[in-house]
Amino acid sequence: MLTNPEKSMEKLVALCKGRGFIFAGSEIYGGLANTWDYGPLGAELKNNVKRAWWKKFVQENPYNVGLDAAILMNPQTWVASGHLGGFSDPLMDCRECHERFRADKLIEDWCAQNSFELPKPIDAFTQQEMKDFIEEHNIPCPTCGKHNFTDIRQFNLMFKTFQGVTEDSKNTVYLRPETAQGIFVNFPNVQRTTRKKLPFGIGQIGKSFRNEITPGNFIFRVREFEQMELEFFCQPGTDLEWFQYWRTFCREWLLSLGLRDENLRLRDHDPEELCFYSKATTDFEFLFPFGWGELWGVADRTDYDLTQHQNTSGKDMTYYDQEKNEHYIPYVIEPSLGVERSVLAFLVDAYDEEVVDAEKNDTRVVMRFHPALAPFKCAVLPLSKKLSGAAQEVYAELSKHFMVDFDDAGSIGKRYRRQDEIGTPLCVTVDFQTVGSETEEADHCVTVRDRDTMAQVRMPISELKAYIEEKISF
Amino acid sequence: MLTNPEKSMEKLVALCKGRGFIFAGSEIYGGLANTWDYGPLGAELKNNVKRAWWKKFVQENPYNVGLDAAILMNPQTWVASGHLGGFSDPLMDCRECHERFRADKLIEDWCAQNSFELPKPIDAFTQQEMKDFIEEHNIPCPTCGKHNFTDIRQFNLMFKTFQGVTEDSKNTVYLRPETAQGIFVNFPNVQRTTRKKLPFGIGQIGKSFRNEITPGNFIFRVREFEQMELEFFCQPGTDLEWFQYWRTFCREWLLSLGLRDENLRLRDHDPEELCFYSKATTDFEFLFPFGWGELWGVADRTDYDLTQHQNTSGKDMTYYDQEKNEHYIPYVIEPSLGVERSVLAFLVDAYDEEVVDAEKNDTRVVMRFHPALAPFKCAVLPLSKKLSGAAQEVYAELSKHFMVDFDDAGSIGKRYRRQDEIGTPLCVTVDFQTVGSETEEADHCVTVRDRDTMAQVRMPISELKAYIEEKISF
Repeated sequence: MLTNPEKSMEKLVALCKGRGFIFAGSEIYGGLANTWDYGPLGAELKNNVKRAWWKKFVQENPYNVGLDAAILMNPQTWVASGHLGGFSDPLMDCRECHERFRADKLIEDWCAQNSFELPKPIDAFTQQEMKDFIEEHNIPCPTCGKHNFTDIRQFNLMFKTFQGVTEDSKNTVYLRPETAQGIFVNFPNVQRTTRKKLPFGIGQIGKSFRNEITPGNFIFRVREFEQMELEFFCQPGTDLEWFQYWRTFCREWLLSLGLRDENLRLRDHDPEELCFYSKATTDFEFLFPFGWGELWGVADRTDYDLTQHQNTSGKDMTYYDQEKNEHYIPYVIEPSLGVERSVLAFLVDAYDEEVVDAEKNDTRVVMRFHPALAPFKCAVLPLSKKLSGAAQEVYAELSKHFMVDFDDAGSIGKRYRRQDEIGTPLCVTVDFQTVGSETEEADHCVTVRDRDTMAQVRMPISELKAYIEEKISF
Repeated sequence: MLTNPEKSMEKLVALCKGRGFIFAGSEIYGGLANTWDYGPLGAELKNNVKRAWWKKFVQENPYNVGLDAAILMNPQTWVASGHLGGFSDPLMDCRECHERFRADKLIEDWCAQNSFELPKPIDAFTQQEMKDFIEEHNIPCPTCGKHNFTDIRQFNLMFKTFQGVTEDSKNTVYLRPETAQGIFVNFPNVQRTTRKKLPFGIGQIGKSFRNEITPGNFIFRVREFEQMELEFFCQPGTDLEWFQYWRTFCREWLLSLGLRDENLRLRDHDPEELCFYSKATTDFEFLFPFGWGELWGVADRTDYDLTQHQNTSGKDMTYYDQEKNEHYIPYVIEPSLGVERSVLAFLVDAYDEEVVDAEKNDTRVVMRFHPALAPFKCAVLPLSKKLSGAAQEVYAELSKHFMVDFDDAGSIGKRYRRQDEIGTPLCVTVDFQTVGSETEEADHCVTVRDRDTMAQVRMPISELKAYIEEKISF
């Protein structure tokens, strides 16, 4: 596959907006702080990513089952999970210009600008250590340049709202900051109704919300986002083995969907970077145009979550192991992936500018999506408007099976380029031979043109469906 | 199809909980006011309903494209749509026992109990008319029986939250109460990028939130719900024609998925019941065990929504009609369907108790889902645990294409019944003939048992996939 080093976020954002992948949210009202609306193509791409995850993590996987829990949960959930107490950003204000900053971001940015290497990851800093570091290095306010910050205070990242008529603490509920807890609280329900034995997993796709102070980088860090989370429950002692299993499984899932190995790195957490309850964590990082960013986290969370819920709810969260005749709380491996971040990674890796003819200065933009992810699986193009009827019949038949585009405007070359730009793997051209004429018999064949090779083959209409299904299978 | 008149919500709720369709949300914490979590089977059923909608309304429909807009929108959206000003419930308190009621519900319930017919639909009553009606008929408090109510006041049904660090009006945002507005504000973006000509539609599936005062009836009225909405834009003057088109289309969609005609009624709004901007509205009502309830609303909303957004945003929301060389705001037809309500209707209609053998008092519970909606498309059952390996091979092959269950526990008869109860259309039994033995050659065939007829056929494993795909096609 050809790559172009000059691709940039600007080009990608422009293509997304111009072709109907992703628009700024509430755009006619000037937007709303980094919300995004997925247009016709973006909605399909996002659905395809979610379907590819569900297919491999739930449908085909003999261990796992699915779940779809509510966004609004009993607030005790967030007491147990620690989100009410500890899910916060360290904020400080500049006393001079009243700008507000995340202390950890301030330090990271300053280190990057001054090529300073921190002695340990910023996540491992306490609030006091951050404060001390900022003082010691006399870090200035990025806005006004002065050095006069308030103390650091913790700002909880959960969105809160009120359920019922009165806006008081009794009626306060939160938009879930992760889908995982919906799985944990349902562990007994799912185990009881599926009669699954360990090891087994529960997968879920759904929206989560985090009141990020500094959302940004297009759809990379947003306040409203979707997660694809698996909680895989296993016998204590087998957890590190399963951790490796899912670490490998997740990597292969990404690569099999066309993500390039050289843009992916797996960063294992050092012991001091690990959460106190985690035995092992790996961050999957992807090389976005703005640098390496976290895509997937795979963590061995031990029995922490289920134990917390057992202690807080007083309900039995143990598993009864028939073979051992023993009750225990399973260990859990959590691969947690963001939908928007994966969509962005697939967009970045798909983007290509290919020189078709250097002399004529002819370059085409091609989105080289894996066919399973491409918004349209094929486009039906009548060579002439006179052939629209016949082409529509082909469209109607194929669209029973997958998403198909129809385009009868402009020259065939221009139409090919338009489809390249949105990543359609195949173009199906209906011409005069297809339908025949008074002098020539119809051959009931179409020309199928490949997005990547631009090669064309002629094929009977009756074979199209199987040919395309083979191509898009995943 | 057999029906059982004694089916009740209680039985259905018990089956949903017992088999893993639907659990009370946050159950281990005592729940959270009518939130629900969809278990492994419910998640599949719900996904299948959404897929069936997307397939017919977006994928196969040459007029329509999809969209996936954010839940959090710029608050000006709700100024334009009227939700900030007018989307409210009329509430009143009992001064004696301090219970709180919806005035319209109080009147409706009183009328039902007293066989009193209202002169017009309750939605057409003004606040004063409701107050007068309650006074005139001396309607008592359903809780304490006294008649001493406060005045009616309007309570806005939008959930509000705060984006950013401070909880003030500047940072107040709302969880969308409908997905429709995400479509309207994107009308120019979608039209520009798809270059669609009128008529065309934009479909969307997504979560909405309404702070209902009296949620209830299982998943019928919930605060957090999903909608499948289509906004179909057309030339003014053609709108009533398209209204009829979508009214018929929606009805056929429901019937083709197995909803029974006798449980469905289409209620056209009287002129006085219509919203002031609507030219025609039809409520699709379904006969739930608790009575007729609204399932789908199809409305001719004229140019109201786009005009409101044009006026509020100052942005051009017109469509340029090339043929007429004219700019105008299109009219819109809106078929708006709730996911949970459709799921409930499909559950209700699928539920059946069939007497298999009256003498032995043998009755089976069968969920007669349309195969396209059934959570599992087939179950693979090894006749003996010794055949698990061969059965797992069949499972692995079929699960590449659709959701398959695997069950090797208990007698084959019990396993059939378990699959009947969750609506699996086909059971595939692997027996000793399938794999052969030292004395007998393998026939590589399996027994396929039909959920509804209980008839069994023997079939080569190689033909299974095509047979099942034919059965589940929609």
